Order: sequence, then structure tokens, then C-alpha cells
Amino acid sequence: MDLATITGILLGVFLIFFSILQSGQLTSFINIGSIMIVFGGTIGATLINFPLSDVLSVIGVIKKGFLNKPPVPTENIKMLVEFAEVARREGILALEDRIKGIEDPFLKEGIQLAVDGTEPDLMRTILDTEIKSLQSRHELGANIMKTMGTYAPAYGMIGTVVGLILMLGTMSDPSTIGPSMAVALITTFYGAVLANLIFLPLAGKLETISSQEVMVKELVLEGVLSIQSGDNPRIVEQKLVSFIPPKKRAALEEKEA
Amino acid sequence: MDLATITGILLGVFLIFFSILQSGQLTSFINIGSIMIVFGGTIGATLINFPLSDVLSVIGVIKKGFLNKPPVPTENIKMLVEFAEVARREGILALEDRIKGIEDPFLKEGIQLAVDGTEPDLMRTILDTEIKSLQSRHELGANIMKTMGTYAPAYGMIGTVVGLILMLGTMSDPSTIGPSMAVALITTFYGAVLANLIFLPLAGKLETISSQEVMVKELVLEGVLSIQSGDNPRIVEQKLVSFIPPKKRAALEEKEA
Amino acid sequence: MDLATITGILLGVFLIFFSILQSGQLTSFINIGSIMIVFGGTIGATLINFPLSDVLSVIGVIKKGFLNKPPVPTENIKMLVEFAEVARREGILALEDRIKGIEDPFLKEGIQLAVDGTEPDLMRTILDTEIKSLQSRHELGANIMKTMGTYAPAYGMIGTVVGLILMLGTMSDPSTIGPSMAVALITTFYGAVLANLIFLPLAGKLETISSQEVMVKELVLEGVLSIQSGDNPRIVEQKLVSFIPPKKRAALEEKEA
Amino acid sequence: MDLATITGILLGVFLIFFSILQSGQLTSFINIGSIMIVFGGTIGATLINFPLSDVLSVIGVIKKGFLNKPPVPTENIKMLVEFAEVARREGILALEDRIKGIEDPFLKEGIQLAVDGTEPDLMRTILDTEIKSLQSRHELGANIMKTMGTYAPAYGMIGTVVGLILMLGTMSDPSTIGPSMAVALITTFYGAVLANLIFLPLAGKLETISSQEVMVKELVLEGVLSIQSGDNPRIVEQKLVSFIPPKKRAALEEKEA
Amino acid sequence: MDLATITGILLGVFLIFFSILQSGQLTSFINIGSIMIVFGGTIGATLINFPLSDVLSVIGVIKKGFLNKPPVPTENIKMLVEFAEVARREGILALEDRIKGIEDPFLKEGIQLAVDGTEPDLMRTILDTEIKSLQSRHELGANIMKTMGTYAPAYGMIGTVVGLILMLGTMSDPSTIGPSMAVALITTFYGAVLANLIFLPLAGKLETISSQEVMVKELVLEGVLSIQSGDNPRIVEQKLVSFIPPKKRAALEEKEA
Repeated sequence: MDLATITGILLGVFLIFFSILQSGQLTSFINIGSIMIVFGGTIGATLINFPLSDVLSVIGVIKKGFLNKPPVPTENIKMLVEFAEVARREGILALEDRIKGIEDPFLKEGIQLAVDGTEPDLMRTILDTEIKSLQSRHELGANIMKTMGTYAPAYGMIGTVVGLILMLGTMSDPSTIGPSMAVALITTFYGAVLANLIFLPLAGKLETISSQEVMVKELVLEGVLSIQSGDNPRIVEQKLVSFIPPKKRAALEEKEA
Repeated sequence: MDLATITGILLGVFLIFFSILQSGQLTSFINIGSIMIVFGGTIGATLINFPLSDVLSVIGVIKKGFLNKPPVPTENIKMLVEFAEVARREGILALEDRIKGIEDPFLKEGIQLAVDGTEPDLMRTILDTEIKSLQSRHELGANIMKTMGTYAPAYGMIGTVVGLILMLGTMSDPSTIGPSMAVALITTFYGAVLANLIFLPLAGKLETISSQEVMVKELVLEGVLSIQSGDNPRIVEQKLVSFIPPKKRAALEEKEA
Repeated sequence: MDLATITGILLGVFLIFFSILQSGQLTSFINIGSIMIVFGGTIGATLINFPLSDVLSVIGVIKKGFLNKPPVPTENIKMLVEFAEVARREGILALEDRIKGIEDPFLKEGIQLAVDGTEPDLMRTILDTEIKSLQSRHELGANIMKTMGTYAPAYGMIGTVVGLILMLGTMSDPSTIGPSMAVALITTFYGAVLANLIFLPLAGKLETISSQEVMVKELVLEGVLSIQSGDNPRIVEQKLVSFIPPKKRAALEEKEA
Repeated sequence: MDLATITGILLGVFLIFFSILQSGQLTSFINIGSIMIVFGGTIGATLINFPLSDVLSVIGVIKKGFLNKPPVPTENIKMLVEFAEVARREGILALEDRIKGIEDPFLKEGIQLAVDGTEPDLMRTILDTEIKSLQSRHELGANIMKTMGTYAPAYGMIGTVVGLILMLGTMSDPSTIGPSMAVALITTFYGAVLANLIFLPLAGKLETISSQEVMVKELVLEGVLSIQSGDNPRIVEQKLVSFIPPKKRAALEEKEA
Repeated sequence: MDLATITGILLGVFLIFFSILQSGQLTSFINIGSIMIVFGGTIGATLINFPLSDVLSVIGVIKKGFLNKPPVPTENIKMLVEFAEVARREGILALEDRIKGIEDPFLKEGIQLAVDGTEPDLMRTILDTEIKSLQSRHELGANIMKTMGTYAPAYGMIGTVVGLILMLGTMSDPSTIGPSMAVALITTFYGAVLANLIFLPLAGKLETISSQEVMVKELVLEGVLSIQSGDNPRIVEQKLVSFIPPKKRAALEEKEA
């Protein structure tokens, strides 16, 4: 569970809420027409911008932003080094028995390919394509959020312009100017908050999650290829350890000890 | 047919329409002069920006945004694996009879080149150039829409400035200020809606369509080259399957079963 | 002659003109001081931004935007295939007699190099450098227009701020506020029209022209190298045809028939 | 210690402070609600955008912006050339005694790998991955600051819109309009100063520091590989000297003399 | 001396000056507080953004924008072709006598390396690194100017917001509103002029100068490598001539004749 995402949203919502409540005017920030233009317009533009199936997949993507557990590369390294030792001692075919116990489908596929005696070049191509298409699926999620973060303020602005035109066209009673402008500005407020509290930050989180996962996948790819080429387990470890920051390496050695 | 595109436009138009109708002032949003400046200016700038033939091709491009059926890569994979089996069993020349039955012109060209005994490097060059020029034609369509999405708000702003200059130059009767400003703001409204409901989202959809088609073409390219090099049908499948997301692979296996 | 460029400018100018004329206030849009700040400032900033010789070359560049005839790649393909046949039949030296008749200096240089027996790698280096430096010269033209399209609205804004400061500093008679603000806004209008009707669209057109020319040059480069390596004329054609869109290929075959 | 960072912040703070103090109205620039919206909103959005551990690491990153000592590549060059002489004279294993004395962990690892007889390709892979993951960790710090520099003005704007809505909704007494707008604008002021005096400039500094460190690491990488391949110390020096600007080379020669 | 830079700045300053003078209100554009916020803030933010030594080097960089003489690649080509002839006739060692007479330190280093019998790969690495680090030093200068061109309008805006807050907080006498707003807008004016007349255009000029110098260096690199590999002087010329535009080639031939 990603506590930062929830903390961040609660913090933002609470502070804006609180600073409005202080003035005792919370109701003047709720306006059905404004909600319709900003939410409806943003969703409409997003539906035009992306295929329906991609837009629907956003729900799962948002969940990921909240529930994601960061991958632990040190565990993959330990497992790969162990596999390298087995392969060195008993030959690569000895890994066949281990495949069932592997949870990560990518590592599973890699070891399966190695055991099947797939040629190194083909293995790299297959696993590389796998990483690239994972990456492009992840980027899609971040992209949809980013695009929604562009449309939301645009529809906020459109709503405000609509409000201003309506107000200016019937400016008979000067005392109504203030409240009408206030209503017109609410869509700007909605658009800006949606973009800066939800869409853009979540897009950022999804990008971080994606790059972490891709890094681990690349680490696994290097590891599997290194095992297949019969590298010494120490060399396998050296190659993989350079993927992670020095601080975390200490953690790796502790666990080893 | 791409329902999302139509749903999105209807949703956006309906919500904006509805929120204006609510106020009973729909007529104050229609202004011939504003339409002339925003539409005319945007079309004018687009004509300068792109060759005439490209601008005219936009109509077909927009149709594509509405009518596009997403390609089904699993079907291409099944066909390519089948071809690989034929080529393995009866030799690559046996594919000659199948060529007539292929609908996709790119796959047809690829198999024809393989049957003709074209050298692998030349085949890759020819098919790669084909993909790249397809891609640059697709990008052109998305580019034109994106450019129109930049000019529309710019001319919306120009129209509003023109309206303000006219209003401010003859500010004799204060009671006309409001309605004049309302009229001036209508061009801003037109420009923003055109950009955020039509041009920019359609540009996004066209980019998605393009990247889907390019992905399928690259899959076909890898498949044909793999067949030509006499790869085992299982290896051909392995290579191609890595192009599509794991979820869709299940669908592939079901069909196979 | 590029009709789209002229049509676009006339359309834009006419519509803006017309919507101003309608109000019978055309004279309030002409202001010497505003012209000085926007034109002068834009030209000044451009002179600082680029070497004098490059800025002067812009005039020729603008002419190109109006007078450019798009290159016809099918003619180059036909000529290159013909040359490939001659080279196949009579040897590459037989092309020496044809060189004088070639109009395109790039094709001429390529055939000359091939006839001189230049090594393929050297030929590719020389012709590639030629394409790259052509491209960077073309990009320069588009770049200058794009930069002017950034400075024009900036100086429009600077002029408006100057006008506002002057107006606000001497706000004795309220009845003069309107007209003074109108005058202040004229520079914004000038800057926006210059950028969105002239500079930015012309920059776009120049980029399109450049990419078309580069494409034809790359086609010629591939053709000449293919001829030199003694490729079969059919293979030369296959390689080159993949550069152009399928629709235009039909035209090529018709002409051949 | 990076004096420029501190001088810059003091200069900016002092000048803004001073120009406000001059007017004797410093208190009207302090507003708890505004601080809550701008700081709280920015921190909230940043927590959503990045994993918690990364956001916490920003504190160390900011410290680096203040305390960083620029690396001195000439010292690394001198040490590497000395090592090259030892390796030439007494063999690469003679460097084993020197390893303990090396402070820079990257150089230490490189020499250790060379002494261990690691193959050149593997060495380059390991050290390259090390540099790339260092770089991506550094970029993360700059990225967080840059993202905060985007959210701060956005929340400044959101706060101002909230203030305007509250003011316009209760516009009973005209004499309160001015002060209410003043308060509304304070969030814009906070957001702009935070972004332009703290976040964006610090992001820039972190990028500079990162590129300097990466350059030195690449220099060390080239040096170690050159030593391992048994290059003449003079050639090692020539290779490494080309990394640093001519002015600093003079300094290198002086020290040598 | 780069006349365009000076002409551009004089033109811009004169026109803005003139259009202000016309109104007889020049003094209302001079304000110590505004100068402090815009200049001080911009310099402060720049000091945080870049190391002190880089910021100080900007003075030399600005001088370069004014005094730069564009390099004349034709002279380098002539010299390199001449060297190629000497090397062909008398052997590469015969170039040793010429080295002292070479002014350009990069060409000098290249010829020295060739005479020393450095291996081609090493030579390319050394000279390439040299070009890349020159390029990154040049980009730094343009980058600092570009960054200042971003901070200047930001501090202009900050100053205006400060002015507005001060004015709105004490809006007792309506007759002072105008002049106070005028003063507030002066910082916007300063920021916009600094950015669009000085920083951004100078950054552009520095980029042009850098790309010209890099082009000449790359030409020299190719030339020296070609000489070392014992190429025919005619081939050396052919390779180098493709770096310069056709128009300038005519000039080269004239000089040769």
C-alpha cells in the first residue's frame, strides 16, 4: 500500500477544505453546472482521445497508484544468484524443478527459456520485447492521467468563460455581478484542483512505479542471460548489484550474512 | 466503429449545451463574426502551415478517428504461425498459393518478398521503410489536428482582443459595456471548445491508432523474417506473442485450443 | 506555386479585416507607435538571435514558402531505375554520358561519384553529410520564423504594458481610459496576428517542404548506392518504391505502362 | 560549501523583503491560510507524485545543493596516470596495495575489478550500469524539486481563485474589496517566490552537480579501462585530459611540474 | 564583430525608448524598487541555479555574442587539403614542421596526434571527447542566458503582485489607484524587456555560434583522420566540401583558381 498517495490526497483536500470552511462559505463552492462542465468535459475529451478499453483500464491504473508495493530488487538478486549457483553445480537443466516455485511471471518465462535451450540472442529479443510492451502499457496509464490533467483546467477555463458571457450579457443589477463572477470562477477552481491534486500527481506516481518495475525486469533479464552463459555466480551478483544504489547493497550483504 | 469518439463528443457538446440552456441564453452564444474569425483564422493558418493536399486529406483522417476498428494482433499471429508450419513442412515456396488469400497488403508484400527469395537484409530494409513512411503519413494527420488545436485558441484570443478594442474605443454608454464584453468573449469560448473538444482529442486518438497499426506491422515484419529464416513455428510464436499484453495471450491460447 | 499559402493568408487577412470593417472602426486599429514596438522589437530581437546573413536569407526562405513546387519522387524513381538498367546492361561507366542531362545537382553528384568508382562507404559519407547540412540549413529558416513567432506576441505584450503604464500614470479624465486601453491592446493584436497568421504557419510550411526534400534526397542516395552495388533494376525499384505512399505507387505503374 | 546557492537565496530574500519593508506593510504579506494552501498543497501533490522514501530523501538532496564541493577531475587524472605507471612497471596486480588508500568508492571498485582480472567488457558493463543508476538517482532529486516548482505556483493560483470566490460571493461593502483581493493575491506571491527562488533554481543546481559527477565517473571509467588494457601512461593521460577544458589543463601541468 | 547583435539591441532599445518618450513620461518608467526586484531576483535565482564560476564566466560569454567572428570553414578545408598533399608526397612526418604555424589549437592537436602515430581509433576518441566537452561548455553559456530569460519575467510578475498587494491593502484614496498600478506594472515591463531583448536573443546567438564552431571542429576531425589514413587529397577535399553549403563551395573554387 502506497501511504504517500493517500496522505498526499488527504493533506491537499483537508487544507483546501479547511481554508474554505474557515470562511463559513463552503456551499458557495458547490455548483452542479460547474461539476458538469469540468467533469463531463474532461471525461468527454478523454474518451475522444483514447480508445474506450484504455480509458476503462484507468480504474485499475488508479488503484495501482494507491495500492502499489514497490518491488524489492534485492530479493530478485538473491534468487538469481542462487539459481546461478545451482546452474553452475548441476547444469542449467537442474533449474527446471525450480520453475514452478517462481512467482514473478517474467522471471519464470526467462528461466523457462534458458532451460529450453533457447539461443541467447532470441532470448534477449523475446524478453526485451516483453519489457518494451510492458513499458508502453504503463506509459499509457500515465499518459491518460496526464492528458486528463491538461483537459481539466481547460474545461475549468471554458466554464468560467461561459459564466462570464452569461453574466455580462445580462448585467442589469450591479449587485449580482460579484456572486455571478464567483460562480463563474468555481469551474476554474474545480479544473485546477482536479489537475494538480489528482491527475498530474497520479500520472507522476504511475511513471515512477513503471520505471521501478522496468528496472527490476532489466535486472532479471541480465541475470537470466548471465546464468545461461554459465557465468560464475560471483560475476552474476556483481552485474546485478550495480543496478541498485550502494545503500541498499549493504542490506543485501546483511541478509546474506 | 469507435464508439468512444462519438460518445465523447456527444457528452462534451451535450453538457456545455445543457449548462448554457439552463440559463435560457443560448442565442447570446451564437455570433457570426466570432465564427468567421475563429474558424476562418484557424483554417487560414492551417492552409499556410501545410500543403493543400495534406489539409484535404484531413477529412479522411477525421473519418478514421470515428470509424477505426482496432487491429487484432492475435489473428495476425495465428496466421503467421500457420504459415511458419506450412513453410517448415513444405518449403517456403508452398506459401505462394496462400498469397492471394491474404487481405492485409503489408503481410501480402512480406510473404511475396519471402517467396521471391529476397535476401533477409533487403527484406528488412524494404518493409522497414514501408513502416516508417506509413508512420510519417499517420503522424501528419495527428500533427494537422494538433496544429489546429493550437491556432483555434490563438484566434479565439485575437477575436476577443479585437472585440475589446472596438468596445473600449467607443465607450460612450456604460450600459453597453457588459454585452460588448460578452460578445468579445465568445471567440475565446469558440476557440477553447474547438481545441479541447475536437482538435486535440482527435489528434490524440489518431496517435493511438497509428501506434497500434505500427505495432501490428512490426509484429508482421518480425514474423515474416522469422518464417523466411526457417525458424521453428514454436519460436515464431514465442517471438510474436511477446508483442501483445499477457491478458490477450490467454485469448490466443483459447482460440488455439 | 503553393496556392495553399496564399489562400491561407488572404483568408485570414480578409476575415479579420472584414470583422473589423463591419464595425466601421478600421482606423482605430492602425497605430504607428504600436507598429514600431511590435515590428521593431521583433526584428531587433531576431537580429540579436541570429547572424545577420541568416536573417537576410529569410527573404528567400519566405519566397520558398509561397513559390515552392513539391518534389515528384516518382520521376526520380523512374530515372534511377532507368539508370540501373543502363548500368546493368552496359556497365556503370556507361552512365557518364547521362550525367550532363541530369538537372538535380544532388543526383548528378551521386552518379558522378559512382562513375568515378568512389568506394560505397565514402559515397554514403559524402552524400549523407550533404543531406545533413541541407537539412540544417532548412531547419535554420524554419527556426528563424518560429523564433519571430515567439518574439512577436512578447513585444505585443510589452507594448500593451507600456500603454497601460502610460494610461494609469495619468488617469485624470475617466472618459479617456477606454480609448487609451484600446490603443494599448492594439500591440497585443499586432503581435498575435503576426505570429499566428505569418510566422508560425510559415515555419510549419518550411518544415514540411524540408522534410519532403530530405525524403527525396534519401531516396536518391539509396538508389545511387543500389545502382553502384550492381543491384538488379527490379530490386532498385522495390527499395525506392517503399519510400512513397501506396496511392502514389499506382501512379508510378500507370506511367510505366 | 557552495557559496553561490546561499548568496543567491539571501540576495533574493533580502531584495524582496527590502522592497516590501520600504512600504511599511510587511504584516500584510503574512497569512496563515495562504501558507497552508501553498505549502500544504505543494507537499500533498508531491507526496502523491513520488514514493515516500524519495520525498524524504529530498532533505539530503537540498543539503547537497548547499554543501556540495565540486569534484576536481585533475586529481583523478593525476591518480589514474600514476596508477597507469605502476601497472606498466610492476604489472596490474601491483595496484592491489593501493586500493585501500583510494577514497572515491567508484575508482576503488574499478581498480578492484581490474586487479581481479575481470574481462574488459564485463567491467565496462558493471561500471556503466553503476554510472547510469547514479545518474537516475540524481535526476530523481532534481525532478522532485522541478515538480514542486510546478505545483507551487499552481496552488498559489488555486488559493487566489478561492480568495476571489469568497470575496465576490459576499461583496456587500465595497471598501473591503481591496484588502480581500490583496489577501487573495498573497498565495500567488508565495507560489511564485517558492518556485522561482527555491525549487526551480535548486533543481538547476542539482542537475549541474549531477552532470559534473557523472563526467568525473566517466573519466575514471575510461582511465581504469585504459590502465587494464595496458595503455602507455602518456596515452592514458591524453585520453583523460580531453575530458577537461583547456584552461584547467594548464593547472594540471603546473601541478605536474 | 557581430554587427547584428549590436544593431538588434540598439534597434529594440531605441524603439521602446522612442515610443515612451513620445508620451513625455520617461520618468514614470524608472523605479528603483522594481529594478531591485527584477535584476536582484534574476541574479539571485541564477546564482542558486548554477555554480559561481559558471555564472562569472557569463561575462565572457556575453562578450562573445557581441565580438564573435564567424569561423571560415573554407580556409580550414584549404589548409587540410594542402596538408593532405604534403603527407601524400613526403609522408605524414613531413607535417611536423607545419605544426608550429597552425593557429587553431584543435587542428594543431589533431595534426600532432597524427604525426605522433596515434592509432586512428584513439585519435577519434580523443578529438571527439574534445568536441563534446567544448560543446557542453558552450551549451552552458546559452543555458545560463536562457535560464535568466525565464527568471526575469517571473520576477517581473512577482514584483507586480507585490505592488498590487501593497496597493490593494491601502486603497483609501481612489485617485492613487492608477499611479500605484502603473508602478506595479513596471516590474512586468522590466522582466519582459530583459528576457526578450537581452537574455533569450543572446542565448539564441550563442547557440548559433556554438553549432558553427562544432561544425568546423567536426570538419577538421574528419580531415585529420582522412589525412592520417593516407587518403588522396582529392578525396579529402570531397569529404570536407560536403560540410559546407553549395554557395560557399563556389567561393572555395574561386580561391583555388
